[in-house]
Parts: sequence; structure tokens; C-alpha cells
Amino acid sequence: MRFEINKDTFLYHLLIAQKALSTKTPNPALQGIKLDVEEDQVVITTSNSDISIKIELKDSSLEVEETGSVLVPGKYLLEIVRKLDGQTVKMSHVEDNLLNIEADHSDITLNLLELEDYPNLVFKLKKDFIKVNVRTLKTIIRQTAFATSTIENRPILTGVYFSIDGKKLTGVATDSYRLSQKTIALDNSYDSMSVIIPGRSLEELMKILENNQDDVEVHFDQNRVLFKYNNVLFHSRLLEGNYPETSKLIPQEYPVQIKFNKEQLITAIERASLLSSRDGQNAIVKLNVRADDAVEISSNSPEIGRVLEEVYPVDEIKGSPLKIAFSSKYMLEALKVFNSSEVTVKFTGEIRPFVLGGEYDEDMLQLILPVKTD
Amino acid sequence: MRFEINKDTFLYHLLIAQKALSTKTPNPALQGIKLDVEEDQVVITTSNSDISIKIELKDSSLEVEETGSVLVPGKYLLEIVRKLDGQTVKMSHVEDNLLNIEADHSDITLNLLELEDYPNLVFKLKKDFIKVNVRTLKTIIRQTAFATSTIENRPILTGVYFSIDGKKLTGVATDSYRLSQKTIALDNSYDSMSVIIPGRSLEELMKILENNQDDVEVHFDQNRVLFKYNNVLFHSRLLEGNYPETSKLIPQEYPVQIKFNKEQLITAIERASLLSSRDGQNAIVKLNVRADDAVEISSNSPEIGRVLEEVYPVDEIKGSPLKIAFSSKYMLEALKVFNSSEVTVKFTGEIRPFVLGGEYDEDMLQLILPVKTD
Repeated sequence: MRFEINKDTFLYHLLIAQKALSTKTPNPALQGIKLDVEEDQVVITTSNSDISIKIELKDSSLEVEETGSVLVPGKYLLEIVRKLDGQTVKMSHVEDNLLNIEADHSDITLNLLELEDYPNLVFKLKKDFIKVNVRTLKTIIRQTAFATSTIENRPILTGVYFSIDGKKLTGVATDSYRLSQKTIALDNSYDSMSVIIPGRSLEELMKILENNQDDVEVHFDQNRVLFKYNNVLFHSRLLEGNYPETSKLIPQEYPVQIKFNKEQLITAIERASLLSSRDGQNAIVKLNVRADDAVEISSNSPEIGRVLEEVYPVDEIKGSPLKIAFSSKYMLEALKVFNSSEVTVKFTGEIRPFVLGGEYDEDMLQLILPVKTD
Repeated sequence: MRFEINKDTFLYHLLIAQKALSTKTPNPALQGIKLDVEEDQVVITTSNSDISIKIELKDSSLEVEETGSVLVPGKYLLEIVRKLDGQTVKMSHVEDNLLNIEADHSDITLNLLELEDYPNLVFKLKKDFIKVNVRTLKTIIRQTAFATSTIENRPILTGVYFSIDGKKLTGVATDSYRLSQKTIALDNSYDSMSVIIPGRSLEELMKILENNQDDVEVHFDQNRVLFKYNNVLFHSRLLEGNYPETSKLIPQEYPVQIKFNKEQLITAIERASLLSSRDGQNAIVKLNVRADDAVEISSNSPEIGRVLEEVYPVDEIKGSPLKIAFSSKYMLEALKVFNSSEVTVKFTGEIRPFVLGGEYDEDMLQLILPVKTD
């Protein structure tokens, strides 16, 4: 193969493909970026155990002199193209399985990997797929995926459970201490179905999706899902098993409701987390609804010190005084996915899960289990 | 003690003091920030095994209600003051060796450390000190300290050797594979003397020095040095021992001289370093002066590939063709401290040290030992 292309265009697409590049893998072929040079396009493919990416790169700057396929060490290809001078990069497959890269005053020769060792990846588009606006898709991922479990002892909880019911797509994630749920409206009605997509795959997908008006096609297959976003195909395995029934976790009545300014509540909880001897933000914070309509956020670490914060709710508190304790990490992560600047925290009781909701966060629910303290 | 002060002013000075704060230390008292509240100022003190900092903080916002001294856990004090709301922070020493910190809606109580355990630090100003403009001081540190050794087997080489001769101050650093030397002019003439200041102390000092027109006073004492920069006293231990005689390392004649565009040479060497199997930038790069007045920069890693860069010097090359090899890390670090956009590389021979110089880098010399290759 032999082609030349605008360097920045090539780099832009290599950086997308990098998201599925294996760095640590028993199979060295997966450390490679596969380039299939066809008459009118360069197909870039990468894969790791969870996800695979295939990009069909067509560009006015592309000039193909000779078609063919090579498997290039991914890390070096990226570093080289990033560092090259000049507008154009020329690549040619030369004898002895070497790749020659030329640009401006640089002449670089890279040992290729064995193309035969590369797995045969299938990126199968289905006739019936779901179409969703890229921004809507980003919203549902951003508001659910953070709540998946990172511990592997219940693998099913490391994924987000997506289900379709007519024109509605709902995503649910829980690590059994908290739950996130978001429903979005689809333009068309689809047959009912459900799948569990690994949270880490969704995080990588997020890095590729931009803030534009484009649509993403979602193609489901037996045990995998394929996202088609412009010229990028993003493929993830699915998690198999039964997702727990989560709807019964959600209380039906909330006798105590408090509307907060979101930023005020966040900074109060952040300060209350500062003196924790636990790692990171995983402090236990207490919330105390006082009779005078103020709310106290506090923490106490006998060895370090204590913090007492006063927060004044936006509206009058509905319900009676209440004391509850929770993980600051869970509360902060839930608060930060809200678009609304005011968030209502709704309590059922001191040892019952509580939920957060916001005016500008329709069909979203964040639920947190309280922590028992003495 | 009890005082209040503008929060941002206090934080600004705590962040300076943080540079000498111990994080890992067998003496827990050194994890503390000492606050001595006097009638018209708060004195902030920190110390680790190498450096100590003392700041005399006077400010129009300071209101002292009660003088006294406390030793506050440094990490928590910094995190709290950084996160507080409001303009003003109030601190008071309350019963049971606790510090109360108040701001806006926050009320924080911090366990104090034992003041008696804090070492007695001496910040002694001498009558005869050296005065140097802060920007000149930064230049000499920036252009020498990077070349100190980081390996402890010859501790003396972990420092920068400073010597005064009349109105000249010279700094020299070497790790025995390269050497940096810079001389600056002082406003006054001083007695001859020399000291070795740890490179790491100088790096911390650099973080405190700003780009203004202020002067820094340098006070030397038996085995320590004190820098006085406005209201900050920065104290470092000195290294003891005899610094090696470095002047005989520097060749006297340079039959081959090549003037490069600095940025072109840097990017060529950076690209030639990309395919190294060695860690980081520590690749071996070859420089080949061709008969046609072009210079080749190249590297070869049989397992990965090879890079060939062509660089065209700014002026005609003086001298005959030559091949030399060097560590890209040393070459890049030396090139990057130049202010000049054109750098002349001067060679004595293929296995002799070579030096770099630049028109706008008066009295500075960077010397690098070549590497033998087959």
C-alpha cells in the first residue's frame, strides 16, 4: 500500500481509533492499528477485549497510489504522526514488512506487526436500528454510567441496563448503594428489548461523541452493540445475565422535601468531606434538618477535627426535622450530573433511600442509600 | 490567638509556605504550619529536612484580637482555606488545643499539633549580603540546576556550585555527563567565596520567585543560605565537600561549528527519540555533518524502526564532516534553556565533549559528553 493524506485529518482519526487500542494485552497484534487502504478510503481498525473501532476515512486530501493492508504498532504511529512537521504525510509499505513514513524533512521506517495475527472483526449493521440524537445519547450515558459498580464481584452491575418501551429508552445503573435512572424520548417507536452495556465501553464512547446535532445509529445484535456515528463504527460486547429489578427500591412517598441551590449544597458537602481520614471524597457526611428551616451538613473525624456547615434551602422545607447520613462521594457524583441549578432532595425516612430530582432534569432520578451511624 | 484576615491573601501565603511543608516525615510536627500571631502580623513557618520558609504576613485586612502561636496540620489547613466561601476567614485557638476556623456559613474545628515538638528554626540575616535582581537569579537557576545529578552516590553533584569573584556570580552544575555554566553580573563587588546549594532547594525557590523587578537578598552563613524575597525568608542547607574542578573539561578549540535554528533542531531530535526502546527521552541520537552542508539527525532501534531527519543549518558549516552520538535527553534539556532562537553547536572531535552557545545567552555554556557507538 502507498498513500498520502493531510496529517491533521489523519491524526484526528487515529486519536479516535486510539480509544480501543490495547496497551496491555497478551496478544501483541492488538497493540496495532490496522490500516486497510482502499481506492477511495483508508479504513482504520483497533480493538481490545471490550470494544472495537472501525473508521472509514475518506478525505479530499487522500491520494491512494497502491491499495493494501498493514498492521502498524499503534503507540509509535500515534507519536510519530503527532510530532511530524508539514501538512502532508506519506505512508508506504516497503519490503521486509516495513512501513515508511515521510513528511517534510523526516524519513521514518517502522517495523510492522504480523497482519495474519489480527483477529477477524465483524462490524455488522442491522436493517432495524435505533436512531438517537448524539446529545441525547450523551446525556443518558453521563447521567447513569458513573453509578455502575467498579468491583467485579457482581459483573452485571458494571454495566448500564438499557430498555426500550415504545418511544422510550431508559438507562439504569446501580452499584447496590445508589441508583441512577434516566429516560429519553425516541423519535420513533421500537419493539421492546433490553441489553446491558459495560460502563467502561460507554465511557470510551463518550470521548468520541461530540456536541453536535448528528444522529447516532444503535445496532443491537445477539451479544453486542454497534454505534454508528458518522464515519465511525464503535462496537462493544454486552454483559450477559439478569439485571436486578430496581423499581421496587424507589420509595413511592416522600414526606420530607428540601429544595437546595445545587452549588451551595455541593460546596458544603465538599468542605464537610475535607477532614475525612478515609481516602478521597468517600467521607460520611450527616445532614440534619433543623426545626428553624436551616439544614446542617456536618462531619466528625475524632483524630482530625469536625466541620459544621449551614445551608439555607431555596424554599420552605416540606415535612418534619430529620437526620440522615450518607457517603459524600455518592451525593456529590449524583448532584454533579444535574443540569438544574436547583435540586430537590426527597426523604422517606432516616434509614430509607432518598432521591434527588431537578426541574430541568426530566425523567431523571438519582437515588442514594443512607449510611447508619450511631 | 485569634485573628481574621482576607481569605485570598492568607491562601496566597500559605501556598508559598507549602513549598517547605513535609509530607512524608518521621517527625509529625513538620507536617504542620506554624502560625505566630503577633500584634501587627502573622508569621507563617514551614520546614522539611532541606528547606525552611518563614513569611511575615502584614496586611490591611489583618485584625488581631489575641496574639499567640499554634501548629496546624498543614495539609488540612490548606485544603480548608482553599475551599472556604466568603472574603474573610477567622481563626481562633480554643480550649483542648483546637483551632476554630470560621467563614461565611462554615464552622470548622481542627485538632492542633503539639507546638513544643516543633524545631527551633533560625532565620539569621547577615549584615553583608548579596543583592541580585529576581529575574537574573531565576535565569542562573533555570540555566544550571537542571543539569545537577539526581543520583545520590556523589551527593556533591546534586547541588549547583556558586562562586563569587568581584562583581561576577557563576553557577555550575554537572552530573558528570554534561555541564551547565552561567555567569551573571552583580551590581556591587563582593569578597570571593563559593557554596554548593542543593538543586532541589533551588527548584522550590524558583516556584516562589515571580517575574518582577524586585531584588533578592542572599545571606550566606556557615552551612546554610538564606534568600530574602520581600516578606518571604527561604532557607536552605548547603552541601559540604569539594566541588570538582570543571574548567579543564571545557575544550579550548572548536574546529567544527554549526549554527542551527533552535526549534528545528529540537523537533528533529524529538522525532529521532520517538522510536527508542529506552525509557522517556533517553534515546541515543546520531548527528552526521554531511559534505553537502546538511546535517542528519538519526536513530535506529532494530526492534522498532529508524528515523532519519534532515536539518539545514542557518549558516554555512565551519569545519569538516563529522559523526557524533549523544543522549537526546541531555541535548534537549540543554537546548531548551536557551533564550536565543539560534544556537551554535561547537565540536572539538567525535569523542570529545561538545558545547552549545547562543548570541542572546551571554556567559552561558552548555557542555555534553558524546556517547560512543559502534
